[in-house]
Amino acid sequence: MLIVTGTIGIDTIHGPTGSAESVMGGSAAYFAAAASHLAPVRLVGVVGADWPEEHRKMLGSFPGIDLEGLEIRESGETFRWGGRYHENMNHRETLFTHLGVVEETPPAVPEAFADSDIVFLANSHPSVQVGMLDMLPERRLTVCDTMDLWINVANAELRELLGRVDGVVLNDSEAELLVEERNVVTAGKRILELGPTFAVVKKGEHGAVLVHRDGVAVIPAFPAEADVVIDPTGAGDSFAGGMMAYISKSGAHDFKTLQASLAWGTVMASFTIGAFGLDGIRSADEDAIASRLDQFREFGRIA
Amino acid sequence: MLIVTGTIGIDTIHGPTGSAESVMGGSAAYFAAAASHLAPVRLVGVVGADWPEEHRKMLGSFPGIDLEGLEIRESGETFRWGGRYHENMNHRETLFTHLGVVEETPPAVPEAFADSDIVFLANSHPSVQVGMLDMLPERRLTVCDTMDLWINVANAELRELLGRVDGVVLNDSEAELLVEERNVVTAGKRILELGPTFAVVKKGEHGAVLVHRDGVAVIPAFPAEADVVIDPTGAGDSFAGGMMAYISKSGAHDFKTLQASLAWGTVMASFTIGAFGLDGIRSADEDAIASRLDQFREFGRIA
Repeated sequence: MLIVTGTIGIDTIHGPTGSAESVMGGSAAYFAAAASHLAPVRLVGVVGADWPEEHRKMLGSFPGIDLEGLEIRESGETFRWGGRYHENMNHRETLFTHLGVVEETPPAVPEAFADSDIVFLANSHPSVQVGMLDMLPERRLTVCDTMDLWINVANAELRELLGRVDGVVLNDSEAELLVEERNVVTAGKRILELGPTFAVVKKGEHGAVLVHRDGVAVIPAFPAEADVVIDPTGAGDSFAGGMMAYISKSGAHDFKTLQASLAWGTVMASFTIGAFGLDGIRSADEDAIASRLDQFREFGRIA
Repeated sequence: MLIVTGTIGIDTIHGPTGSAESVMGGSAAYFAAAASHLAPVRLVGVVGADWPEEHRKMLGSFPGIDLEGLEIRESGETFRWGGRYHENMNHRETLFTHLGVVEETPPAVPEAFADSDIVFLANSHPSVQVGMLDMLPERRLTVCDTMDLWINVANAELRELLGRVDGVVLNDSEAELLVEERNVVTAGKRILELGPTFAVVKKGEHGAVLVHRDGVAVIPAFPAEADVVIDPTGAGDSFAGGMMAYISKSGAHDFKTLQASLAWGTVMASFTIGAFGLDGIRSADEDAIASRLDQFREFGRIA
């Protein structure tokens, strides 16, 4: 069974086509919402007393998400993030970050989740991510995400984490920062030297590269037109959610399975960018996902 | 029969791993060298009295290139270009450009080439490109390239050209400049409004997008590691050469054929970047090309 731990947040987003206040966000929320369309997913996270009732309803509206690991900490405040996308959507500016409960004691993995075998550690302090590992003794595949901040301020802890996971999913700029190599294939190989069996380097609108001990795979992004890209927030987490859910569903995690999982990640990300918050991924149903995957296979066919 | 017109030049290239003086370059040279591996190609271009004997030998060593349209103008100087690639290979700085014979009267299409039906107008002044059309009355498919300079200084002439070609192949930054739209799919669609049936937007290391009246296709670049990328000069022209040669060989130019041609372009470009000048593409033989294409199909398989 798939489990994700990470942030659940309240986002404020300004984009070239509009703004949205207090939408549901956070790495674990996007991951779980995307994953739940393909496989059941357990969520471990913490919010504060200010967590909006409509966010609870939104998350509850995804039948595949088990919320038993969602802690509402009455003494704290929910993680909040504000960002602005500029006209070309390729640059994001962080306007504010209030960590709130995210800087406190991490949430515990409930007893009922202890047998989870496919683990995704969404972006968080690497020490928190390492701490989760000990609460998940039956893990068969562990994959983590990270971000620039931890590469800069918690490098040793991040390297410890990388020595204990099977895979890592990160952006091209993060990969470059981590191993000081801009070429994504070479950067991926350097990351494997730090421990993982595979690295997925995400390139946003340019797709992703999987670098694995058993091979390399490349995938373009879904070719979305400008007017359907409303809010790229959470696209990377949705990509990871689609990937990991496919892996969980398939019961294998060899190179071929991982390569196949990239298309599911791509398709889930393509729904996320179509609306603010979780609305894009919410709008997807089984038929829409199957049809978009077929479309993507046609777009990306190498004859 | 496929024909290309464009520049033949003498390049000086500085890269992070080394430099090369006076190597064979130019858009038509790269295009023809790449194309010739798949289909016969006729070349129309002009060089000066200073054109090195070893460049003639190099071009002559590609058996598929018909050089009857190569004019050696004794009164002029060969086009020369110097550039520097910075450490990350994604930024190129032009050090010098001596237009030489390229600013003079364009070369004529020899009588023997007048029945060419698949035409590629490599980068040149759009008026020169338009002028070529009248010398090729039997053309069935005409595709052009262009560059920032002409978009800026000869926009009206370029728009006239775009109204008379079937397709255009250009970089993402050029597409953005031409139609003021950064999203490559939307930019491609805007370009179709200017006349062509299709546009191929090249994204360098991130692959390419084909926007056609009958559909959209995306393709990643060949996942080359840092240490095999020696000189990206001519990669785009080699891409176009591989594409157009496949189209010429297949005898069709519908959407499906164009989509299939992208993989051949990608593979030819992957050889070009492996060495300075034409050495990379020169090193490719039928087996190496077939094997790299198979590899690319595996890397890019969407399961």
